[in-house]
Amino acid sequence: MLNEKMLQLGENRSVIREIFEYGNKRRAEIGAENVFDFSLGNPSIPAPHKVNEAMIKLLSETDPVKLHGYTSAQGAPDVRKTIADSITHRFGIGADANLIYMTCGAAASLTISLNAICNQGDEVIALAPFFPEYRVFVEKAGAKLVVAKCRESDFQIDFGALENAITPNTKAIIVNSPNNPTGVVFSKDTIEELASLLNKKQQEYGKRIFIICDEPYRELAYGVDVPYIPNFYDNTLVCYSYSKSLSLPGERIGYIFVSPNIDNCNKVYAAVCGAGRALGFVCAPSLLQFTVKDCVELTSDISVYKKNRDLLYNNLTEYGYTAAKPDGAFYLFIKSPEADANAFCERAKKYELLLVPSDSFGYEGYVRISYCVSTEQIEKSLPYFKELIEEYK
Amino acid sequence: MLNEKMLQLGENRSVIREIFEYGNKRRAEIGAENVFDFSLGNPSIPAPHKVNEAMIKLLSETDPVKLHGYTSAQGAPDVRKTIADSITHRFGIGADANLIYMTCGAAASLTISLNAICNQGDEVIALAPFFPEYRVFVEKAGAKLVVAKCRESDFQIDFGALENAITPNTKAIIVNSPNNPTGVVFSKDTIEELASLLNKKQQEYGKRIFIICDEPYRELAYGVDVPYIPNFYDNTLVCYSYSKSLSLPGERIGYIFVSPNIDNCNKVYAAVCGAGRALGFVCAPSLLQFTVKDCVELTSDISVYKKNRDLLYNNLTEYGYTAAKPDGAFYLFIKSPEADANAFCERAKKYELLLVPSDSFGYEGYVRISYCVSTEQIEKSLPYFKELIEEYK
Repeated sequence: MLNEKMLQLGENRSVIREIFEYGNKRRAEIGAENVFDFSLGNPSIPAPHKVNEAMIKLLSETDPVKLHGYTSAQGAPDVRKTIADSITHRFGIGADANLIYMTCGAAASLTISLNAICNQGDEVIALAPFFPEYRVFVEKAGAKLVVAKCRESDFQIDFGALENAITPNTKAIIVNSPNNPTGVVFSKDTIEELASLLNKKQQEYGKRIFIICDEPYRELAYGVDVPYIPNFYDNTLVCYSYSKSLSLPGERIGYIFVSPNIDNCNKVYAAVCGAGRALGFVCAPSLLQFTVKDCVELTSDISVYKKNRDLLYNNLTEYGYTAAKPDGAFYLFIKSPEADANAFCERAKKYELLLVPSDSFGYEGYVRISYCVSTEQIEKSLPYFKELIEEYK
Repeated sequence: MLNEKMLQLGENRSVIREIFEYGNKRRAEIGAENVFDFSLGNPSIPAPHKVNEAMIKLLSETDPVKLHGYTSAQGAPDVRKTIADSITHRFGIGADANLIYMTCGAAASLTISLNAICNQGDEVIALAPFFPEYRVFVEKAGAKLVVAKCRESDFQIDFGALENAITPNTKAIIVNSPNNPTGVVFSKDTIEELASLLNKKQQEYGKRIFIICDEPYRELAYGVDVPYIPNFYDNTLVCYSYSKSLSLPGERIGYIFVSPNIDNCNKVYAAVCGAGRALGFVCAPSLLQFTVKDCVELTSDISVYKKNRDLLYNNLTEYGYTAAKPDGAFYLFIKSPEADANAFCERAKKYELLLVPSDSFGYEGYVRISYCVSTEQIEKSLPYFKELIEEYK
């Protein structure tokens, strides 16, 4: 009688959520300071002071009817112009306010983009390992998720696997760099080769293939450049969120940028507007729109994440763990020392180490460690990571 | 290549939006004070001071990592508990935090509810006249919108028409009281008869029929009771929004309340959680969640709307207009003095009166007047309304 698919999605908690609940149980039993929970991707550093200051200033000085009123569905024009100017200034592509659509965060950016472009029977490619909700979002948009695994040596794109995954039904490929769960940043070489392959396939099939860039971690990169894909490939939609860059994940604010290099980009933008409307978004939260306008090129102090990354990566590799090169985001993806990553995660629980097995990311034999935690937690956990790997020696 | 339906929705501006744009043009030409724009349903009274104060207090005193962090997908537990307690206290039904799902406003409440319960081939009934986006939301959920017209004498439900509209495929009926666009509040008699008819039909077909109450205007009622439908009918989902009651339409905050009287209500709630997830909502904006917790039984000063209602209704009926009895919301629904309401609206433009013809609400021969405007605008417009009707005498 209900929608069975939605019921299943509501009843089946994600693996990450299960681990988090287990963590809550252990925290109650032995004290939070003795549980080393690396399961959640919730930013651990506060929003910059300037963000709260901007919000308080808006609340104190702006006419509340305007501040809290509906903006246009695509977002307040001055907010969109500020973001478009920032994109132009940072990445050199001529962005325009009329190609920016404000959203309730990255998930909304993705569902709106997918619903705008997909029809029943379309295929959307995800590069494994990938954020598990991609499957949920793609299927709800009526399309089929097709998986192409990244190469294990460096978790860059495996172009053989990707080429095999592309068919005449391919509508889009989702690219997430810096990546959840690996922390890998796709190199300029990778993006150039991706653009070249997709251009070849577009020509071969005489149809358009979109790249959907899922970019919530763009600002979280440690000493490497993150190539801006619209500069490499025309048919690109950028799905951005301020959740991680400004530590505002609960506030739900982000945007979609439709590349001006798409043929008839205004039609794609119109479809984005239509999808936002049909999914019930109305407009992105108005106070947050005006806040990100005032904080457009600001980021949280990500030096803590870099410190955590260095501490974990350097020590864990020294202990004997193998990990993908973690240049961004706040995840470390380590190879399970036994074939079954679930068994390894169970064993880690003995040391109160809560890790996420990689199966739910569409890739077996690894675990994800989220290092958006206190540096102290990492320092205290290191001896246990060491004991854990020594069990396998 | 795009999703044609989404493209159409994005390209076809609503009638209301067209009128608003025409108003902008006229405002630029002759000055805003000379244009009597009654087209938009945007609250004209500010949010209560206490709302901004609560927000500033939260921003000043709460740990930003907690304040701006993800809440659970269904909303922060303490927020849901406060709302559930308020429902119990105000309406006497035993609400529970685990049956409240926080949303990004009324549109999200509706799309999430519809996607949770509908399957392909289901029918959802709207009572005309109705908010035009119902069609968009119902069709995007894979269901078919079936229209049952209200009776013209008082715009209460026409039970003959409704009974004809119910089939074995009926999954739900959307009830919006106080109503947009009529301002009518469905009486206790109406709701009792509705419950009785639906119970009969449930028994006849051996299946469940939901009422989806769309209640953004609940608090905007002028001296009449608005029956709380879960007290009359078991299979009810309440879709609430704080947009109008707290004048926060741009902030996108509301909730779904799944009645505890639904058999297996936890399953319905799970499907709601699943639909919210699949549509990309993640959680409702966290600052706004905590704000409505602190302002749970507060409303904006709606005395201005009542004053506007009295001024317009009393004068317009005295001039010879016929109107539905406007007991709530901020709309007056007047009969067009000529059969073609569009022609009447064109004629009204001569007097710079911007009114919305009723066709897009699924009901012909009427116009909607939104009186969420300044009282001064109404006072200045009255002589023109008088001149306008006199053209027909």
